[in-house]
Amino acid sequence: MRVKSDVPSNEFSLIERYFTNIGKTDYPARLSQGDDAAVLDVPAGMQAVMSVDTLIGGVHFPEQTSAADIAFKALAVNLSDLAAMAAKPAWFLLSLSLPDYNEIWLEEFSSSLKQLAQIYRVELVGGDTCQGSLSVTIQITGLVRDGQFVTRTGAQVGDSILVSGALGNASLGLAHLEQRIHLPSSLQEVCLSALNRPKPRLELAEFLSSYASSAIDLSDGLVGDLNHILRNSQVGASLRQGDLPVNDWIRKNDAFNHALIGGDDYEICCTVPSQYRDRVDEWNLIHPDCLLSEIGEITESNYTLITDDHSVDLKTWQGYQHFG
Amino acid sequence: MRVKSDVPSNEFSLIERYFTNIGKTDYPARLSQGDDAAVLDVPAGMQAVMSVDTLIGGVHFPEQTSAADIAFKALAVNLSDLAAMAAKPAWFLLSLSLPDYNEIWLEEFSSSLKQLAQIYRVELVGGDTCQGSLSVTIQITGLVRDGQFVTRTGAQVGDSILVSGALGNASLGLAHLEQRIHLPSSLQEVCLSALNRPKPRLELAEFLSSYASSAIDLSDGLVGDLNHILRNSQVGASLRQGDLPVNDWIRKNDAFNHALIGGDDYEICCTVPSQYRDRVDEWNLIHPDCLLSEIGEITESNYTLITDDHSVDLKTWQGYQHFG
Repeated sequence: MRVKSDVPSNEFSLIERYFTNIGKTDYPARLSQGDDAAVLDVPAGMQAVMSVDTLIGGVHFPEQTSAADIAFKALAVNLSDLAAMAAKPAWFLLSLSLPDYNEIWLEEFSSSLKQLAQIYRVELVGGDTCQGSLSVTIQITGLVRDGQFVTRTGAQVGDSILVSGALGNASLGLAHLEQRIHLPSSLQEVCLSALNRPKPRLELAEFLSSYASSAIDLSDGLVGDLNHILRNSQVGASLRQGDLPVNDWIRKNDAFNHALIGGDDYEICCTVPSQYRDRVDEWNLIHPDCLLSEIGEITESNYTLITDDHSVDLKTWQGYQHFG
Repeated sequence: MRVKSDVPSNEFSLIERYFTNIGKTDYPARLSQGDDAAVLDVPAGMQAVMSVDTLIGGVHFPEQTSAADIAFKALAVNLSDLAAMAAKPAWFLLSLSLPDYNEIWLEEFSSSLKQLAQIYRVELVGGDTCQGSLSVTIQITGLVRDGQFVTRTGAQVGDSILVSGALGNASLGLAHLEQRIHLPSSLQEVCLSALNRPKPRLELAEFLSSYASSAIDLSDGLVGDLNHILRNSQVGASLRQGDLPVNDWIRKNDAFNHALIGGDDYEICCTVPSQYRDRVDEWNLIHPDCLLSEIGEITESNYTLITDDHSVDLKTWQGYQHFG
C-alpha cells in the first residue's frame, strides 16, 4: 500500500527544497513549517477567516495546464474567497498530491506559488505532499477587523447588485481550449489568462467592509452564485443582461451564457444599498482595473433576467453543478 | 472538463445534507459553513495551531477501508498533530474528493466524522467537495495558551525519550490485511483498530506543555519521526529495543521493525528532562490507557538502537518515504 519509488527524496526534503520561504505576511508565524503544526498569532481586535479549496486535474483545470498556472490558480481561488469576505490574507497550508516526483514541474509550481504569495502578502506555513493523482488543496486564513467581514446574508430589497471586472472570459477561454468555439486572436490571451490566472479582488476589502450588504465570489457562475446570496438573504433579484460587463464577442454572438453560468470568473458580486451609489462611482474613478458594474437590483422574491425583448425566470436555471 | 452527472444533487445540497452540524467546539464559530469562508475568534491569550493532512485511497488506507474508518482516520491523524503540539482542537475544514455520489457511503462517512468530532470537541466550519479519485483532506485548527505549545526543537542531552501507548500495532494490522503475516485472532482486532481508528493522544496536552522539551506524533515510524526531533534539536539518541512498548507477538517473532519503521501509530514521542521522571510515574499511575514508556535517552550526536546483543546505527535507517 505504501508508496515506494526509486526517487532519492522523501517528503521532508521535498518540502525543504521546494516549499520553504514561500510568501511573506504582515503577520509573521510564531512557528512556521517543519513541525507538526504551525502556530499563529491572531492580533487582538481581529478575527481569523478560513477557507479551503481543492483543484483536481481534469476537473478544475485541463490536464495540459502548466504547473505555474495550476499553482497560480490554486492560490488565487482561495485568495478570492477571502476577498469576498473583505479579509486580508495572512497564511496558507498546502496539500499536494502528485503522480510522480518531477523536479521541473515542482520547480515551476513552487516558483509560481512564491510569486503570487509575495504579491498578496500571504505565507505558506505548512502542508503535506503525497503520491496520487494530481490534486492541490490550499487552506487559507485571512484576518479581518472585528466584525468587519461581509457575508452572503444581508442583501436588502432595493440594493444595487454589482460585479467587479468582466464576466465570461474564463468560460470563453475554456471553450476555446476545448475547441467548442474559436476566439479571435485578439481575445485569446485575455480569456486564457482569465481561466488560468484569475485575479483575486483583494483590493475591494475596504469598499466591501464599508458599503456592501452582502458579497460572494463568482466561481460557479453568476446565476448560481448570486442565488446563494438570495437564499441566505431571503430576497429576489432582477438582472439586466444589457448591463453585464462582457466583451464584444459575447454581445455579438449573443453568448451571454458564458457570463451567466460559465463559472471560474473569480470576480466579486456584491450588493450595495442605494445610498452608496456615489461611493461606487468614486471607486470606479480611481480603480479602472477593478471597475464595479451595476447589473441589477435586489427585489422581494422573483429571480429574473431582463433581456432586450423578454424576461427569463432564473429560478429554473442552475450554475455549475459539482455532482449534478 | 466540468463534472456533469445525473445525480440530482449539487455540492451545495450535498454539504447541507451530510456535513452540517458536525461536531461542537468550546469556541463557537462567529460564522460557520455556508459562506465563502468561516470566521473564527481566537480568544485573547491564545494562539492558533494549524495543520493539514490528506489521506488518499490506496496510499494512506487500503481501498477496501470502510467510509466510517476513513472518516475516523482522516480526522484522527489531524487531531494527532494537535496533540503533538499540546494544542486543544477547535475547528476543522474538510475537502472531500469522491469518485461518485454514493448516499450510503456519504451517510456512513459523515456519521463517523460527527461522532469523532463530538468526542474531541472540534467543529466542522467549512470545506468543499468535488468529483475525483477518493481523497480526504482535513485542515485543523487548535488553540494553545500563549507560548504553551511544544515543538520538535528543544530536546536536550540527558532527556528521557518517551512514547505513549503501544508501537507497531497499526503496521501489524496492515501486514495482516495484506496477508504478509497472519496474526493470532486475539491480536487481530486491536491491530486493525490501531490501523483504522488511531487514537489521538489529546489527553497529553497539559503534560506536554508542562514537562516536555520536544514532541512529535508518530505517523511515519519511530526511527524517522524521532529523527526530526534530533535534527531540529541538534542532538542524538540512544534507544533500547527491549523497552519499546510492543505486544508479545512482536517480541516472540523478533518483528521490532513494525514498531521502529512501521508507521501509522499516531502515538506521541516526546522528550522530558530527567528531573521530571516522577511526573511521568504519576502520569502513568492515573492514566493506564495512555501509558508513557521510557525507551531511551537523548545523547550528544549518535543515533543508535541497543538490542540484546548489539548496537544498530539508526542514522542509516529511514522510516516511511513518501517519495523515496
